[in-house]
Amino acid sequence: MKQPIRIGVLGLGRIGKMHIRNLVAMKDFEVVHGVDPFLNEETEQEMQELGISCSREPEDIFSDPSITAVMICSITETHSDFIIRAAKAGKDIFCEKPIDHNVDRILSALRAVKEADVILQVGFMHRFDIHHSKIQHMIADGSIGKLEVLKITSRDPAPPSMKYISESGGIYVDFMIHDFDMARFLTGSEVKEVFATGTSVCDPQISEYGDVGSGHAILRFENGTIAVLETSRRSSFGHDQRIEALGSEGCAMDDNIYENNVRFFTHDGFHGAKVPYHFPERYKDAYLVELTDFAEAVRQHSVPSVTGFDGLQAVLIAEAAAISAKSGKLEPVRKVTVS
Amino acid sequence: MKQPIRIGVLGLGRIGKMHIRNLVAMKDFEVVHGVDPFLNEETEQEMQELGISCSREPEDIFSDPSITAVMICSITETHSDFIIRAAKAGKDIFCEKPIDHNVDRILSALRAVKEADVILQVGFMHRFDIHHSKIQHMIADGSIGKLEVLKITSRDPAPPSMKYISESGGIYVDFMIHDFDMARFLTGSEVKEVFATGTSVCDPQISEYGDVGSGHAILRFENGTIAVLETSRRSSFGHDQRIEALGSEGCAMDDNIYENNVRFFTHDGFHGAKVPYHFPERYKDAYLVELTDFAEAVRQHSVPSVTGFDGLQAVLIAEAAAISAKSGKLEPVRKVTVS
Amino acid sequence: MKQPIRIGVLGLGRIGKMHIRNLVAMKDFEVVHGVDPFLNEETEQEMQELGISCSREPEDIFSDPSITAVMICSITETHSDFIIRAAKAGKDIFCEKPIDHNVDRILSALRAVKEADVILQVGFMHRFDIHHSKIQHMIADGSIGKLEVLKITSRDPAPPSMKYISESGGIYVDFMIHDFDMARFLTGSEVKEVFATGTSVCDPQISEYGDVGSGHAILRFENGTIAVLETSRRSSFGHDQRIEALGSEGCAMDDNIYENNVRFFTHDGFHGAKVPYHFPERYKDAYLVELTDFAEAVRQHSVPSVTGFDGLQAVLIAEAAAISAKSGKLEPVRKVTVS
Amino acid sequence: MKQPIRIGVLGLGRIGKMHIRNLVAMKDFEVVHGVDPFLNEETEQEMQELGISCSREPEDIFSDPSITAVMICSITETHSDFIIRAAKAGKDIFCEKPIDHNVDRILSALRAVKEADVILQVGFMHRFDIHHSKIQHMIADGSIGKLEVLKITSRDPAPPSMKYISESGGIYVDFMIHDFDMARFLTGSEVKEVFATGTSVCDPQISEYGDVGSGHAILRFENGTIAVLETSRRSSFGHDQRIEALGSEGCAMDDNIYENNVRFFTHDGFHGAKVPYHFPERYKDAYLVELTDFAEAVRQHSVPSVTGFDGLQAVLIAEAAAISAKSGKLEPVRKVTVS
Repeated sequence: MKQPIRIGVLGLGRIGKMHIRNLVAMKDFEVVHGVDPFLNEETEQEMQELGISCSREPEDIFSDPSITAVMICSITETHSDFIIRAAKAGKDIFCEKPIDHNVDRILSALRAVKEADVILQVGFMHRFDIHHSKIQHMIADGSIGKLEVLKITSRDPAPPSMKYISESGGIYVDFMIHDFDMARFLTGSEVKEVFATGTSVCDPQISEYGDVGSGHAILRFENGTIAVLETSRRSSFGHDQRIEALGSEGCAMDDNIYENNVRFFTHDGFHGAKVPYHFPERYKDAYLVELTDFAEAVRQHSVPSVTGFDGLQAVLIAEAAAISAKSGKLEPVRKVTVS
Repeated sequence: MKQPIRIGVLGLGRIGKMHIRNLVAMKDFEVVHGVDPFLNEETEQEMQELGISCSREPEDIFSDPSITAVMICSITETHSDFIIRAAKAGKDIFCEKPIDHNVDRILSALRAVKEADVILQVGFMHRFDIHHSKIQHMIADGSIGKLEVLKITSRDPAPPSMKYISESGGIYVDFMIHDFDMARFLTGSEVKEVFATGTSVCDPQISEYGDVGSGHAILRFENGTIAVLETSRRSSFGHDQRIEALGSEGCAMDDNIYENNVRFFTHDGFHGAKVPYHFPERYKDAYLVELTDFAEAVRQHSVPSVTGFDGLQAVLIAEAAAISAKSGKLEPVRKVTVS
Repeated sequence: MKQPIRIGVLGLGRIGKMHIRNLVAMKDFEVVHGVDPFLNEETEQEMQELGISCSREPEDIFSDPSITAVMICSITETHSDFIIRAAKAGKDIFCEKPIDHNVDRILSALRAVKEADVILQVGFMHRFDIHHSKIQHMIADGSIGKLEVLKITSRDPAPPSMKYISESGGIYVDFMIHDFDMARFLTGSEVKEVFATGTSVCDPQISEYGDVGSGHAILRFENGTIAVLETSRRSSFGHDQRIEALGSEGCAMDDNIYENNVRFFTHDGFHGAKVPYHFPERYKDAYLVELTDFAEAVRQHSVPSVTGFDGLQAVLIAEAAAISAKSGKLEPVRKVTVS
Repeated sequence: MKQPIRIGVLGLGRIGKMHIRNLVAMKDFEVVHGVDPFLNEETEQEMQELGISCSREPEDIFSDPSITAVMICSITETHSDFIIRAAKAGKDIFCEKPIDHNVDRILSALRAVKEADVILQVGFMHRFDIHHSKIQHMIADGSIGKLEVLKITSRDPAPPSMKYISESGGIYVDFMIHDFDMARFLTGSEVKEVFATGTSVCDPQISEYGDVGSGHAILRFENGTIAVLETSRRSSFGHDQRIEALGSEGCAMDDNIYENNVRFFTHDGFHGAKVPYHFPERYKDAYLVELTDFAEAVRQHSVPSVTGFDGLQAVLIAEAAAISAKSGKLEPVRKVTVS
């Protein structure tokens, strides 16, 4: 059997712990150390139970030569710096989305990765969902003919805390970034122009932070495809995640998944099960596939399924969307080259 | 345009009135006269509003030479006699199911029809439902390969009155007769043996009349197919009507129909529309197709889609089922020839 | 029984003939005369078979005092003039969509209707579809909570002839006008601003006529709701007509309808029936309900379900959409008052 | 963390290896040793890679005091003997279905288990499927009202080898035993009488071994419920596993599961994904839940979810079904007490 990849985790919040649980259950990885600047007793104990040492000092990971890969789950502001430090230390990197809110910092990070010739994979787990990826296959292999219109619906069950909103960078870079990435992934083309608009009718408080609760965007791609993205911080029925691809030969649509497939018929109609409440349940399997994919890229030192370039492009689209939401106009997406 | 078929209706109860509403709306028919021995003022007025004369005397229809067709919707006991009288008067006949509870009387009726060379169509409207008939086509044209197992689910929303139950002839000849006919129609074969059993757990009062509220039957056909029939006088969610055909190449299933196709997703799951409450709504379109089919048979003097022989066979299966329900054994279906 | 409404039909093209077939089958109407400037032998014969006289002269209808209502199915350019002439002759009016491409002419027509105090109903039959109207009820009665986002998908199976395209007035006023009307109907609010864009990737020839084959629009309503409209002149699988309403309490979605509800399961997956090919099949029932609704408005001299004001507003939204598609900006919808 | 349960596996065929893969992935178990009388090189190597020692001698497991539990996946004839030997050695037992074809041997085994006070769980994994168990909950908690009729559809994709058929004990005890168990589980009652019949129309060769390829049974329960079981060794579209529970308040139905939830709409209708091919894929999750359940029973020395009594009852129903299939009559299920 292959040796597990010794990995250190930066950021032990909700998403960090979720990844750790997956990593621990996989034979591909051995989680060696966890770091969180706000490490508390509860987390310390959780890590201890999993047999993982932990500390508040990122250097504990970067300076440990036995650790060959890092997973970055810390707050967005720290991502670029951690990527650079990991790259310099020769470690392969898995980084949660978005790479950064700032395009220049992203470019610095990508440059460091390139120089060090390490793997960088970005956490767009939507790509690994079997339903979404079935549609991607059907587009890529021509099953639907020429793709003409792509529609993505992406809704969270409930808005996050206002603190989160205030630090999120806004709905486009924080939330719709998944959908911007999926649109690129599915069309296989780059976005030329974006129109975006939004509203906070679902939670007026969000507008106090200069943000919106629902974001709606139309993307025009270089290959002529149009994508219509429909998102909301709230859909009271759960994590609504659907894709629709209209091609010249037909239309492929996926549906949400359901907790079970029982329908109950009464005098009042029929009733079916809930959709998963939020992304950890909805993308449970996708998170595992994503890590398996990362492990393979690391072992073979090959291009990962989701690259730093992908991470950059999604941020550039988000940037244009945010500008459009203010200007009320179709806005071009910046072209940036990673020198 | 073709001349309408001048038709008289015997029996102005619920089903008779439903047919009349359909006949009146169709250009193929002109309803000339209605007869009911218990004619009341309300019915009289309804007929008047539709421009239809009515009386209590069947002879008013049989002796009117301008009436060329009759529709028999009276109580089952009268069917055979009315068929014979109509045949002798040279009128084409549409008769509601079952032709009769008594096989000998059915044979007399069929003989009279044959001698007079008139059309006799029996009211098995399930055959004309587009969903069921799609399955029939898929079996007949080999789409599903060789048919191996047929399943029919047939449930009423609520038991009829105990008076109705007491005069119905029992669940097999009154209710499952539709399903026995559909099984023959779908398999294209004759039933060799029947096992039937039932229970009144859905309404214990039914057992006081020597009948059951749910009937379950397994039919073995001459061509090797097995049919499993599942029926109940009560399914609180509406008129449950589903067919499933397992063939060597795959399985065709139809579903109930719904009042609309809206689904509503909430924190509690999703909710869909009701199925139609009972047969008049469920088979609304089928009743019209059935009458169009009858009109065509009458006009072309051709064999109707549902013959007297079909009506007889269904009663013979019902007879075997009733015997089986008592004996607890597979029982053969009687072979009877219409000399 | 009530006397039928004596109606004359202007325009005996595809849609005119479809309405005539429905009118003839309904007891509410008697089609007295049909007019078409390009009347040919085939149409003449069809009308004769239906017992309807016909000619090439509109005045034959306007000047006949026994005709109390007119149905306008002629080319759009003639609508306003015919409305004015019908109104002056004191006849109630059913007019196909759009009322006119020109807002001033619409205003003249509405003024004439107002002065003459006749009924004017516009042919937005989508409103009468039971699936769509179920969603409207669920929004209006608060079942879904406060409506936040509305999505409409509306696609034709195949583009019309290039001749049709060249005279259509463009996708926004010709095609999406139905969806603009539905958006107003469903939200119960007026559109403040529109962003629209399109592409002819589905049929590049369309762009030679300065038009697009697929239109995508985001509408911002006065009450804060956002509507996202997705349309195409081509969806190879049939007439795709779906609505989705995201509210604070949940999301209501309807689905297309299918030719039958049989599913066939094979080693290769399962297969289901087609959706109706085009609007005459898809909105078959809705067209009948629409006419029943018109008959009731005429008989009771009451405000019809779809008014001239509704017809005007839809055109104003289409106008803003067409401007936006050129400017690449959110554009305001003109406020116009019918003095 | 809890110590893993040290388990030995008897029988390293297809099902044994599947369980081993699951056990190895679970923290609850440590697979210590595997035994198969026909151990070949390939299996030896597979076990070595998993770090599991293996041999041809069952005693290697029974005599190892460090092994506290055994999993019996060997051929049915050996089950009772292995249960007795494991019980005498004080080991907890997981035994694949059926316990035995012979009721007397089952009774001996159950007696040994009772005397030794060890855990015995039988491998009816259908109970642990989330869709089926949702229905069980809805019956048990009264959601569907009083259960009246239960329907189970259970079909394999393709018949096993004729060698397997010839040694299987027949369709009732080998195949339908799962459904007999589910019927007891769902109704919460014991079967009084059984009618069963079958056919080999799906594969005539099966009849040469005195067996049938499809089995159809009606069960009458002590509490008045009727269950209708529909099974086949072949359904070309995959492992068809559906349950339907008609209660006084409504009807709960589950559906098969699908490889993904994408639907593709074309001019020809729509197409959906496959159902899982066979039980290892269909019950993938259920097999894991089953083992978790066993681990809990072992750790807490509590009554497992599926007991030896359950295993016995299923065989007694199968026995009555086999008799009925020959006699053509409703047959009583033997009452047997484990003294």
